[in-house]
Amino acid sequence: MSLDTAHPQVRSLLPLLYVAWADGVLTPSEADTLHAQIRAQDWLDDEVREAVCAHLDPQSPPSATQYFRWIRALREGAADAPVTARCSLAELGVQMAAAGNGSTLPDASRRALADIEAALGVDGEELVADLLGERPEPEPPRREAPFDVEAMTALLDGPHAELRTHIRTLLQDPVFEYPEAPRTEAYREQVLAWCERLAEQGLGALGYPEAYGGEGDMEKFIAAFETLAEHDLSMVIKFGVQFGLFGGSIHRLGTEKHHEKYLRRAGTLDLPGCFAMTERAHGSNVRELETTAHYDADAESFVIDTPRHEAHKEWIGNAAAHGQLATVFAQLHTDGAHHGVHAFLVPIRSADGTPAPGVRIEDCGEKMGLNGVDNGRLWFDEVRIPRENLLDRFATVQPDGTYESPIPSPGRRFFTMLSTLIGGRISVARAGLSAAKSGLTIAVRYGARRRQFGPKDEAEVPLLDYRTHKRRLLPKLATTYALHFALDDLTQRFAAKGPEEPLEKVEAEANALKAYATWHTTDTLQEAREACGGQGYKADNRIGALKADTDVFTTFEGDNTVLLLQVAKGLLSDFRREFRDMNLLGMARFVVDEVATRLSELNPVVTRTTDPEHLRSRDFQRFAFQYRADRMLLSAGQRLQRRIENENMDPFDAFTDVQDHLVQLAHAEAERVVYDRFVAATDELDEDSLRDPLTRLRQLFGLYRIEQNLDWFLEAGVVERSKSKAIRGEVNALCDEVRPQAEALVDAFGIPDACLAAPIATDDRY
Amino acid sequence: MSLDTAHPQVRSLLPLLYVAWADGVLTPSEADTLHAQIRAQDWLDDEVREAVCAHLDPQSPPSATQYFRWIRALREGAADAPVTARCSLAELGVQMAAAGNGSTLPDASRRALADIEAALGVDGEELVADLLGERPEPEPPRREAPFDVEAMTALLDGPHAELRTHIRTLLQDPVFEYPEAPRTEAYREQVLAWCERLAEQGLGALGYPEAYGGEGDMEKFIAAFETLAEHDLSMVIKFGVQFGLFGGSIHRLGTEKHHEKYLRRAGTLDLPGCFAMTERAHGSNVRELETTAHYDADAESFVIDTPRHEAHKEWIGNAAAHGQLATVFAQLHTDGAHHGVHAFLVPIRSADGTPAPGVRIEDCGEKMGLNGVDNGRLWFDEVRIPRENLLDRFATVQPDGTYESPIPSPGRRFFTMLSTLIGGRISVARAGLSAAKSGLTIAVRYGARRRQFGPKDEAEVPLLDYRTHKRRLLPKLATTYALHFALDDLTQRFAAKGPEEPLEKVEAEANALKAYATWHTTDTLQEAREACGGQGYKADNRIGALKADTDVFTTFEGDNTVLLLQVAKGLLSDFRREFRDMNLLGMARFVVDEVATRLSELNPVVTRTTDPEHLRSRDFQRFAFQYRADRMLLSAGQRLQRRIENENMDPFDAFTDVQDHLVQLAHAEAERVVYDRFVAATDELDEDSLRDPLTRLRQLFGLYRIEQNLDWFLEAGVVERSKSKAIRGEVNALCDEVRPQAEALVDAFGIPDACLAAPIATDDRY
Repeated sequence: MSLDTAHPQVRSLLPLLYVAWADGVLTPSEADTLHAQIRAQDWLDDEVREAVCAHLDPQSPPSATQYFRWIRALREGAADAPVTARCSLAELGVQMAAAGNGSTLPDASRRALADIEAALGVDGEELVADLLGERPEPEPPRREAPFDVEAMTALLDGPHAELRTHIRTLLQDPVFEYPEAPRTEAYREQVLAWCERLAEQGLGALGYPEAYGGEGDMEKFIAAFETLAEHDLSMVIKFGVQFGLFGGSIHRLGTEKHHEKYLRRAGTLDLPGCFAMTERAHGSNVRELETTAHYDADAESFVIDTPRHEAHKEWIGNAAAHGQLATVFAQLHTDGAHHGVHAFLVPIRSADGTPAPGVRIEDCGEKMGLNGVDNGRLWFDEVRIPRENLLDRFATVQPDGTYESPIPSPGRRFFTMLSTLIGGRISVARAGLSAAKSGLTIAVRYGARRRQFGPKDEAEVPLLDYRTHKRRLLPKLATTYALHFALDDLTQRFAAKGPEEPLEKVEAEANALKAYATWHTTDTLQEAREACGGQGYKADNRIGALKADTDVFTTFEGDNTVLLLQVAKGLLSDFRREFRDMNLLGMARFVVDEVATRLSELNPVVTRTTDPEHLRSRDFQRFAFQYRADRMLLSAGQRLQRRIENENMDPFDAFTDVQDHLVQLAHAEAERVVYDRFVAATDELDEDSLRDPLTRLRQLFGLYRIEQNLDWFLEAGVVERSKSKAIRGEVNALCDEVRPQAEALVDAFGIPDACLAAPIATDDRY
Repeated sequence: MSLDTAHPQVRSLLPLLYVAWADGVLTPSEADTLHAQIRAQDWLDDEVREAVCAHLDPQSPPSATQYFRWIRALREGAADAPVTARCSLAELGVQMAAAGNGSTLPDASRRALADIEAALGVDGEELVADLLGERPEPEPPRREAPFDVEAMTALLDGPHAELRTHIRTLLQDPVFEYPEAPRTEAYREQVLAWCERLAEQGLGALGYPEAYGGEGDMEKFIAAFETLAEHDLSMVIKFGVQFGLFGGSIHRLGTEKHHEKYLRRAGTLDLPGCFAMTERAHGSNVRELETTAHYDADAESFVIDTPRHEAHKEWIGNAAAHGQLATVFAQLHTDGAHHGVHAFLVPIRSADGTPAPGVRIEDCGEKMGLNGVDNGRLWFDEVRIPRENLLDRFATVQPDGTYESPIPSPGRRFFTMLSTLIGGRISVARAGLSAAKSGLTIAVRYGARRRQFGPKDEAEVPLLDYRTHKRRLLPKLATTYALHFALDDLTQRFAAKGPEEPLEKVEAEANALKAYATWHTTDTLQEAREACGGQGYKADNRIGALKADTDVFTTFEGDNTVLLLQVAKGLLSDFRREFRDMNLLGMARFVVDEVATRLSELNPVVTRTTDPEHLRSRDFQRFAFQYRADRMLLSAGQRLQRRIENENMDPFDAFTDVQDHLVQLAHAEAERVVYDRFVAATDELDEDSLRDPLTRLRQLFGLYRIEQNLDWFLEAGVVERSKSKAIRGEVNALCDEVRPQAEALVDAFGIPDACLAAPIATDDRY
C-alpha cells in the first residue's frame, strides 16, 4: 500500500514520516508512541490514520524509492510556500496541506502536529532545513578598507619607511624568485648570491661606520633585517651571520686596526666570515666553553686549540661552505693566568675553499629548515694566529704577555663582550615577527575567502566568520601588532644607547622580548598552518617553510627558557638591591603592604566590575599586567629566601626548584612591557583613523592575555568568578569587532605578494 | 700603591674588594658607604684602612692585572681552607686571614665584615662560588631500570606483541634504512618499494577476509599500522591509503563481486589505488562535494564528471604517481532524482602509467612533510564506468535505473558510508602517538645525558634534572601512556563491533580521541624539538621529520576543530533525547540539581582538601573530569537554548556563536574518556611492578590536566585558591618522582634504535 501524497491530511503528516525514518531506525517503542498519537487525532480520516501508521512499522521500513518520493513531495511543497530554515515540522505540515489544494487545516490539528513533533524529540528545524533547495552562489567579497591601509603601513614602517620600500621593491626583482625545492648545495649558493646582491645595495654595512661603507646606524640595519625577513629566511639568517655577527663582532669587539683591515670587506661580502662561539658541549653555558687560546710571547702569537673532540665549534653559520675568517671565542691564558673568554680572528679557509692548516671543518648537514645556510663544525689543532688577531677593545695582551683591560672584573668583561649579542637577539625577534606577519597574511586572506558549511538556504560561510576561526587568528593578529611596537621601541633604545653604556636594562628587555616574540611566532605559524587546512600544508603556500625556518628561533641566539631565567634573576637582583637596607621580613612586609594597598585601592572595581568599558580600559588591563609582574616577583623572592634561609638549600638547587615560577615571572614581565609599549604607541597617535583599529587591537591583546592567564588572576583573587566569565565573553566581542578589519590589518603589514608567493593568499581563484 | 696581599687584615678585606669591582662599576655613593664602614673598623691598622680605601676610588679602578692578582690570592686562600659554595664573603675573609699566617681575627671584626657585606647588598655566596675551582667530571650515568621494562613493553604491545616484534625486526632490515634527504621522486619510489615489501609480508591485507589473503582482523591491521609508524611516516600513510582507505572502501562499501575482482590485488599492491573523496572546494563538508555520477540506463553505465574547475579531487594519496583505480565519491543522480554521495570505482591510469581517457591528473607538488606520498588532483570529464562499479553494499541501481537501498534515509545512508572513515581516524591517532613516542624517546634520552650549567663546585647538571625541563617532557610522557591505553580500548571496541552495528558511540569517541591525540602529538614534538635545542633541529635527529610529517594529522582525516564540534553536537543530541519529556526549564533545573548534589556530596573535600593523597586519588581526579564534562554540557545546552528560544537566533548562527564552548566541551569529554581508560587499564593490572609506575603516570596525567584547566575549575568553584596552589606543587612533586623512571618509561615503548636513528638518542658519544 502506498501513500497518496496528494491527500492534504497525508501531506500534513509527511514531515513526521520523513523525520521518523531519517536516522534509518524506528524502535518499537518509538513506533508505539507515534501510533498512539496519530490514532488520537480525530480530525484525521480513518484510512489516513491507518495508512500512515502502516508506514511507521519497524518491521517494514519504506524503500529508498518510496522515501525519496516523500522527500520530493516535501521539497515541491516547500518550494510552493515561504518555507525557511526556521520552519518547524508542524508548520511545514500545515503548509504542505495548504500547498496541496489550498485548504487549511483546523487549528486543533495544528496544535496536534506540534505535540507529535515535541514527542519525537528531534530538532525539527534542522531536518526541515535539510529538505531545502540549492545553495545560492556567495556574494562576491567586498574589499572596502575600514581604515587608511597605506597610513597604517607607514606607521608600522616608521622612520625607515623609505628603506623598507626600497628593499621590498628589490625583493620583487626576478632574481629573488624562490627556487622550487632546491637541493641544499644549490640553495646555499642561491642564498650566497642573494646576500651578495644585498651587499651591493649597501644593506650589509648599514650598521658600520661611514668610513667603512656604512651609515653607522644600527636601527636602520635592524629595519633592513626585519624587512628582508619578509622574504626567504635562510637569506636573512646568512645576512645576519655575515654582517651582524661576524662583521658586528669586528666592529664592536675589535679596534681601529681590525676595522681598517676587515670591516669594508666584511660589509661587501668580499670576506665571508663566521661567528664561532657555540660549542657542541657548551651552547647556553658559553662562559665555560672549552676552546683555548694560549699566548706564546716568544712567537708573539696565540695558539688556538680544541682540547677534546666534543669541544668543537658547532652550528657555525657560513662555516660549512663559504666562510674564510672566523671570530672564535676561546678561553685566554697568558703565562699561566686564565682570563676567561675572549674573541680572536682565525682564518679558516682560503678564498679557493681550502681549509686553513690545523683547521678541520665538517658540515652540520641537513636541518629541519634554513638549509640555505651552511652551518658547520670547526676543530682547531694548535692553530697559530698573530697577537693582533685578538679583538682587543675590552682587553689587550702586550707583546710580553702582560694582560690589560679597561674592565678589571672578568665577569663584567664577559658580560660586556656578550652584549654584542643583544643586537642579534632583537634582530631575531623582529625577523620572527616578520614571519608571523607573513603567516597571518596568508591565513587571514584564506580564511576570509574559503567557505565551508553554512545555513541550509544560504551560501557557505567564510571560515573567518566562525567563532573558532576568529579565536585562532585574531588574538594572534593583535599580539603581532603589540609586539611590533614593543620591538620598535626596544630597537630605538638599543641603537641610541651605544655599546659603551651599561646595557643591563636593554639586555634584559631584549632577552624577555626575544623569548616572547619567537614563541609567539611558533604558535602563530602553527595556528596559521592548521587554519589553512591541507592548503596550509602545501609547500607553495609557504607556511611550512616559515614554520620550519623559524622553529629554531626559540632556541638559538639564546635558548628561550634560559633567557627567561636570566630575566627573572635580573629582576630578583634589582629587587634585592632596592630593598637592601631592610631585613628579609621587613622587605616582604613592605612589598606585601604596598601590593595590598594597590589592590585595595582598586577594589572592588578591579575584582568585580564586568562592564565592557572597564574590561577594555587601559587602567584595568595595565593594572592587571603590572600587578601580576609585581606579585610574581615578590612571591618568587619569598620562595627563594625560604629555601635558602629557612631550609638551608644550596642556592643553585633553590633556583632550580623554583624555575617554574621564575619562567612565569619573566613571562609576566615580558607581557607587561609589551602591553605598556603598545599603549604608548597608540597614545602617541594624533586623533586619526588609525587610533580606532589600533585601540581595539590593544584591547583585544590585553584582554586575551588576561583571559589566557585567568588561572593566575583567579587564584590571586584579582578577578572574581563573574568577572572571569565576562572577560571570556568580551574577548569574543572584540574578535567580532576586529573581524571586519582583519584583511586590512594584514594588508597593512605591506608584505609584497612576490614575497608571500602563496597562491591561497595572492591568487584570487582560491 | 699596591696592596700587600700577604697582610692578614688586607686578606680579610680582599673578598670585599673583589665584590666591589665585580660588576666593573663603583658609584661614588657606594664608595662613600664602603669608606665610612671601613674607617669605622678600629681593629684595622691605619695604613690598611687607607690602602683599602684607596683601592675603592671610583676614579681609579684597579687594573685587570691587579684585579687578577686579588682573584689569584683569593683562589689560593680558598684552596687552603674548606671553602664551599655556601660560604659568605665575610667567612671567606676570615679564612683568608687565617690561611695567610694562621692567626684568627677577633670576633668583633668577624661581625664587622658581615655588616659590610650586608651593606653591599650583593649575593656574596654566588660571588664566592664564582671563585671556586674546576668542575669535576660527571659520574658515568647509572642505567638501572626501576621496573621491568620488558614487561612494560609487553603490556603496551598487548595481544599483538608477536606481530609488533615481527614488524620491528623487519624494519631493522637494511632495505628500510632511511635515505638521506631524498628528492621527492626518488622518495616516492622508495616508499612504494617499502610498501610492496610490507605487502609481501601479508601486512596490507590483515583486515580483509581470509578468502582474499587476509585475516579478517581490523585490530591486528591497526596494530601493524601503529607499529609501522615507528618508522618513516610517508611509508605508513601510503600503506594506509592503499590498504586501509582504498582496499578498505572496496571491502566495506563493496559487495562480493568487487571483493572477488579487486580485494586480493589491493592487498598485494598488485593494484595500487586511491580514495578520492576530498575536493578542492569541499574538504570538511563532504556531503556537498560536487563531482557527479549520472546513471545512463541505455548504456548501463555511470558518467563521472567534475562540474567545474575548483571541484576537482584534491590531496588524493597515490594519485600523482602510482594509483590505477580510484574509489571516487560523487553525487548520484538517476533519472532526475538526486540520491546524495555514493562511491564508484573509476580507473584513473593504466599499469604503464598512462592516465585513463577523460581523467586529468595533476601532482599536488611539494608539501611540508610526507613527501614520500604522491598526492594528486583528479578531474573527470564525463568518464563512463560500468554499472557494476558502484560500490553497492548500501545502495544499488538496477539496470533500468531504479534506485534501491536497505537504508531509506539518505542522511543515514551517508553516515553509514562515512563510517568507513572511523578506522582511518583511529589509525591516524595511533600513528601520531607512535611519532610522539619516538620524539619523547629522543628528547628524554638526550635530556638525561646532556649537561649544562650546575653548582660551581660540581659537575654540570643533566637537563632533565631541571624543573623546567621535567615540566616540558614528563607530563607529555604521562599523557602519551594515557592515550596509548585509551586508543587501545577504542580500537578493540571498534574492531569488535563490526561495520553493521550503529557506530555513533564509537565514532564520537574516535573523533574526540583523534583530535585529542593528534594535537598532543603536535605539542609533544614541538616540546621535544625545543628540549633538544640545536640538536633537535638537525635532520638526522629525526624530530624535524616527525614534526613535519605529523603536522597534517590535525587537519586531515577530519579537521580536529570540525571533529570536536561534531562530538559536542552529538553530546547535545544525546542530552536532549535523554530529557525529551521535560520542558526546557525542568530539564535545566533537574541537571543543575543533580550536578549541585554531586558537588555538595564531596564538599568541602573536593574544593578544599590539599593533601597529596587526595590530589592524586582517582576519586578526586575522576570527579574533576566528569564534573567538568557534565557541567560544560549543561552550560552549552543552556547557551544554545537561550539563543534559539529567547533570542530567536537561527540555529546555525546559534551554534556558531557558542563554538568556543562546544570545542571546550568536546575537549573535556575527550579528557574524561582518556582518564577513565587509563584508570581502567591500571586497575586491570595484577599487583606487580608495573602498577606503581603506571599509577604515578596516571596521577601525573590527571593532575597536570587539571592544573592546565585551573581557570575553569576555579571559575566553576570546583577548587578553591589554596587548593589550586597545592595542585601546582603536587604536579612538581609528581614530575620529580617520575624523573628517575623517565628513561625506562621511554625504553618501554620498544622503538628500535634503527627506527629512531637519531644520534642523540642512540649514540652514547652524545
